Amino acid sequence: MPINIGIVGYGNLGAGVEKALQHQHDMALSAIFTRRAPSSVETISSAKVRPYSDLLESQVEADVLILCGGSRSDLPHQSPELAQYYNIIDSYDTHAKIPEHYEAVGNAAQSTTAIISCGWDPGLFSINRVYAEAVLPDGFTSTFWGEGLSQGHSDAVRRVPGVADGVQYTVPSPEAIQAAREGQGSDLPTAQKHKRQCFVVLQPGADRDEVRHAIVTMPDYFADYETTVEFITAEDLARNHRDMPHGGFVIRSGETSAEVSSTIEYSLALGSNPEFTASVLVAYARAAYRLAQRGSSGVYTPFDIGPGLLHPQEAAHLRATML
Amino acid sequence: MPINIGIVGYGNLGAGVEKALQHQHDMALSAIFTRRAPSSVETISSAKVRPYSDLLESQVEADVLILCGGSRSDLPHQSPELAQYYNIIDSYDTHAKIPEHYEAVGNAAQSTTAIISCGWDPGLFSINRVYAEAVLPDGFTSTFWGEGLSQGHSDAVRRVPGVADGVQYTVPSPEAIQAAREGQGSDLPTAQKHKRQCFVVLQPGADRDEVRHAIVTMPDYFADYETTVEFITAEDLARNHRDMPHGGFVIRSGETSAEVSSTIEYSLALGSNPEFTASVLVAYARAAYRLAQRGSSGVYTPFDIGPGLLHPQEAAHLRATML
Repeated sequence: MPINIGIVGYGNLGAGVEKALQHQHDMALSAIFTRRAPSSVETISSAKVRPYSDLLESQVEADVLILCGGSRSDLPHQSPELAQYYNIIDSYDTHAKIPEHYEAVGNAAQSTTAIISCGWDPGLFSINRVYAEAVLPDGFTSTFWGEGLSQGHSDAVRRVPGVADGVQYTVPSPEAIQAAREGQGSDLPTAQKHKRQCFVVLQPGADRDEVRHAIVTMPDYFADYETTVEFITAEDLARNHRDMPHGGFVIRSGETSAEVSSTIEYSLALGSNPEFTASVLVAYARAAYRLAQRGSSGVYTPFDIGPGLLHPQEAAHLRATML
Repeated sequence: MPINIGIVGYGNLGAGVEKALQHQHDMALSAIFTRRAPSSVETISSAKVRPYSDLLESQVEADVLILCGGSRSDLPHQSPELAQYYNIIDSYDTHAKIPEHYEAVGNAAQSTTAIISCGWDPGLFSINRVYAEAVLPDGFTSTFWGEGLSQGHSDAVRRVPGVADGVQYTVPSPEAIQAAREGQGSDLPTAQKHKRQCFVVLQPGADRDEVRHAIVTMPDYFADYETTVEFITAEDLARNHRDMPHGGFVIRSGETSAEVSSTIEYSLALGSNPEFTASVLVAYARAAYRLAQRGSSGVYTPFDIGPGLLHPQEAAHLRATML
């Protein structure tokens, strides 16, 4: 019997989960749940689309729900609501509010299993920070993001008067990465470890210099960074900037004895940020299912989950082939 | 109260554990246990040195024993023997015999907690293989070792007639690493992914060409590899080749949808192989202690251990600061 998965929310991430499930042979997509009109949602796999309210009106058949809403307005409400009745996975990523979210989901998950914050940051990057710091306590960890498309910064660019459309890429500084590998530069602020590249389509009649100035001086988003602005056509934007690549590096360097140091590096180069995040969610859904089968209810984060629980093979097989 | 650690066996790895404990503020070294004459053992931290037999004759005060013997002749016997009475950690690394070792230790650990195979390969490399394969099921994993000193191959060089002393470094091929990052070359045999560099001190009167030929044609060890042999003086060897650096790469590349791929890469660059392996053992000793405190007895591998158990901070603190 495959593990039955329900997808809650069908944007880029939800569609990514739908694709990721096609690579997992012990899982099946049960249905997609949406707050839009179900008939308006076109899916990749011709899965059933049902209204979100179905989840609350009766117990829907799903071993695990993967919540694909946003951290700002969807998950703070949906994760606790659905964890009352279902095993759930989310990718809650508002770092500062994770303890609050953890508590809310934990209160709800009395007889169910929930794993929160299962993406790559938070998620795979977080566990690598923990492993590396536990092994090399005297050292420094640096996280770099990119090269990748930043949704928040792209939105900021598009709000500038005179901008018709645009995207922003975050690019880590090669010099800062090299310094981190050598155990230096750990005190650098994020703004000195990254550059920002903007590709902008102007509105008719807009002034390049004014737009450029408005972008590079924007507080919080760009003013502290080395920022470049390149003006392109709408066709160029559509042709060359549709993908959502991302990635980054977690690098820890530390001493094991005087003047003897080691470096642990974890890096991701992602063709599609939402598809990869979805792939992580799906692997943690397997862990949630197994925990629920054992009667281990409650709320968890990736810090609590042994790696073997994510993998489709049995523990004995993993020990024989992958240890 | 610190976690009391006993070190069993005092070679490079045991001395590495002694150093690693100096970086862990919630742990204390209880004693070092040896099968040599205790008075003949000189330690770094002036720790107590006691005979191995003390461990069997009465219950010694130690929360966790870290076993630092070899996988060939020490651990198959010592791990099950000591797991009857103590919580233990080992770095058992004979990959093919891990299931057998797991079973023997499991039978012994009826009321104790044991974690086996806690180094970097097996260990950190293994868990990264599992995480990466769980997240990207349709892809290929490549492991590269080095650049690093190989003890087994150095021994082989030193057995060649005419060789007074020598060391061997394993060097991964940059082209093969690049191919793995791009999702190609996964079928390459180990011999095509690595080169071997030998530094040899000749015996007086030995013939360079004969020695070189004997090394590069040695079956299993060198014949299949691109091998270089450089002749150096005993002084050069002593000055420049005393360290035991090592490291490597675990790279998995896989597709999340048609023609969209991601790459996950984990790499280590270790100033000292035994010191780093010891640092991993010490972090897993903390996990074993915590499992034992909860009454979770039995045998485990790194696949079973959530990352948070390795870190000195409480789970709530990790969630607030590192997720």
